[in-house]
This record gives sequence, structure tokens and C-alpha cells, in this order.
Amino acid sequence: MAIRYPNGKVYQPTQNESPEKKRLTKKDLSFSNRGKSLEDDLNETNDFYVRNGIASIYKKPVPIQIVKVEYPKRSAAVIREAYFRTPSTTDYNGVWNGYYIDFEAKETESKTSFPLKNIHDHQIKHMQDVIAQKGIAFFIVRFTTLERTFVVPFHMVEEAWRNMDNGGRKSIPLALFEQVAEELQLGLSPRLDYLLVVNKFVANN
Amino acid sequence: MAIRYPNGKVYQPTQNESPEKKRLTKKDLSFSNRGKSLEDDLNETNDFYVRNGIASIYKKPVPIQIVKVEYPKRSAAVIREAYFRTPSTTDYNGVWNGYYIDFEAKETESKTSFPLKNIHDHQIKHMQDVIAQKGIAFFIVRFTTLERTFVVPFHMVEEAWRNMDNGGRKSIPLALFEQVAEELQLGLSPRLDYLLVVNKFVANN
Repeated sequence: MAIRYPNGKVYQPTQNESPEKKRLTKKDLSFSNRGKSLEDDLNETNDFYVRNGIASIYKKPVPIQIVKVEYPKRSAAVIREAYFRTPSTTDYNGVWNGYYIDFEAKETESKTSFPLKNIHDHQIKHMQDVIAQKGIAFFIVRFTTLERTFVVPFHMVEEAWRNMDNGGRKSIPLALFEQVAEELQLGLSPRLDYLLVVNKFVANN
Repeated sequence: MAIRYPNGKVYQPTQNESPEKKRLTKKDLSFSNRGKSLEDDLNETNDFYVRNGIASIYKKPVPIQIVKVEYPKRSAAVIREAYFRTPSTTDYNGVWNGYYIDFEAKETESKTSFPLKNIHDHQIKHMQDVIAQKGIAFFIVRFTTLERTFVVPFHMVEEAWRNMDNGGRKSIPLALFEQVAEELQLGLSPRLDYLLVVNKFVANN
């Protein structure tokens, strides 16, 4: 096996991710899926894109409100009190072949539908802004239990969101993903070649 | 005077900015410049762009390596040990009218030249990647003592950087800014309408 993080990046757990979610089963150890998180797969894929000159796309740092910092002599500054802030945008953005790329990645353990409570108002607003500026906005959604990952055009989520505001259902059924979104197959390198699929969105514009 | 931060954002000092730098002189209190930092001016300008549907450009959060988090009952998680990390990209990015926008903002107190030590290897590399992907990359440089602010095309900095690597000077003289870069006049709202100038870079491509 190739070493997956040649640049020596330190693994950072996300806020939404609890270690308990990562119980390994026999199924997880199959060649195509070793129980890595969606975030791990995307970081690895973006590293691959940057290293190979395919795209320049990064995950944004988690926004922090810093309250107290210590400056010990002869060593690095230490943050001693800080709080997580609500991000004003999405998690990932960058540029690919002249296109501005902007997306949010979400996991759900549900086997039947994607709960819209995973998405926030300000993310919908931000993605509307991106599309108004002629950028490309989408979601990457993984059904972790089913081991299925979809690239979801923004308009599909936006419509479900609008329906929910008008009293409609609070989740998007898997069947709609199968119908409208593009399913991604896991690869070895890159793990999740989502730009192949985004290419289709562009071609359809 | 209008309230400058209608969205109630909390002011966050940056790493490079010490409060001592902000001594107010009579000159600073003139109408056009009240001694605000370049970062304040840019945040205000980007807020203006987003509110008015002109562009969707944001400052990225400062990357932090989190080591220890406490989860007190019935209150927000508190980060108790964390360290500043070196950013892998530039500070600002986003989309404007189909263009991917990527820039770094720097201040210098020098009256005669901009020291290249303010810029890091990985930022040059990142901006080269952005341009290879047909994005627009530039610097915004403020000579704080002179109260002059320039939008600097990436190729100007890249050339000075290459010359320095070959034994050339370690700073860019003000005269070159006056010749090659675009000077910005401060406005009331937005404070620093840098997209007007970036427009010229696009037209010249």
C-alpha cells in the first residue's frame, strides 16, 4: 500500500465526528472501503489534485473564537481558551480549470433518507450567492451504513429545503439521490474523484 | 457615521498585528483614514460585496491545531490547548462574476520598499497553482506609514521572488509599485474597492 499522507499532515478530527462512529466491521475492511471518514477521503483526494496539478481545492480551517493566548518564552504561543464558531460559508472551496468550486460534505447513518437538519440556513444562502456569481456549488453526501457516496447538485437540495419550509418532508429520500445525484465509486488514488462528476454538471449547463 | 459592522461580528486580532502598531496620530484621524488595519478594511469591503451581491469573497479562518477540548455540561465546548499552524494557502478567496479570486494582504511600516520576508514559499507555490487553474491571484500591500495601498499582480511579486533566489534584492522598491501595481484610494463604503482594479487585470489578459 502507498503511504496515504506523504506531506505529513496531522489528522484533525472534526466537530461532528465522534470516535464511536468509527467501529470497524468486517465489511469495512473490504478493499473498496476501509472505514475512512468522508473528510479523510476528500482531504486525500484534494491532496492528489494539488500534487498532480489537476485543481487547487482545500478544506477551510474550523473557525475559532480565540479568548486567551499564552506566549511562553522560547516556545510556540499556546491558545488556552477558545470556542468553536459557526462557519459563515461551506467547508471546501477552490479553483479547477477556471471554475470556482464550492461544496459541503455531509455523512448520515440513515439507510433511507438524508435529514435536512444536517444543513444550515447560512450554507444555503452562501451557495445561492456562489451560483449567482457563476461558481459551481454542490454537496457530497455519504450514507455511511450503505457505503454509498453521491455528488448532489445544489438545486436538488435547494428544492427540498424550500419544500420543507412550506411544510414538506424534513429529509431527502435515497431514491431521489439515485435519480438526480451522481453516485461516486471509491478508487485507490484518488479515493473520491468527484471532479469527474462535476465535469458533467458543467457540460449540462 | 454609519455603524461599520451591522452583522455584529466580533473583532479578531490577527497573529501579525500587535496593538502597539495602532498608535493614532492626528494624520490618522483624517476623514480618509482612521488608522484601521488593512484586514479591517478588507473584511468590511468583503461584507459590502456579499451584502450587495457583488461578489462572494471571505477571509479564511486561522488554522489551529487543537490538542485539548473540554465539554462542560450545559455549556459550549472549550478549547484548552491549541497551537497556530502555518496556513497552506492564502488568506482570502472566493468568486466574482465567474472568476476565482485569491489574494494575500500584507502591511509594511517601511517608507521605501516592501520586504519579501513577509511572503512565504508556500504562498508563492499556491498562487502559481491558482494561475495554472485560470484563477486570478494578487497581493494587496499597504505601506502603513505612507497610508498607501496597492493591488499587486502576482507576476510582479513572483519576478522579485525569483530575482531574490538568484542573489537579487530582498525587497520590492516603492517605485516599482508605483510603476506596475494599481494604487487604491480609500472610500467610505466600501473602504477598499479592490475589485474595480482587479477588473483591469482581467481586461488585460
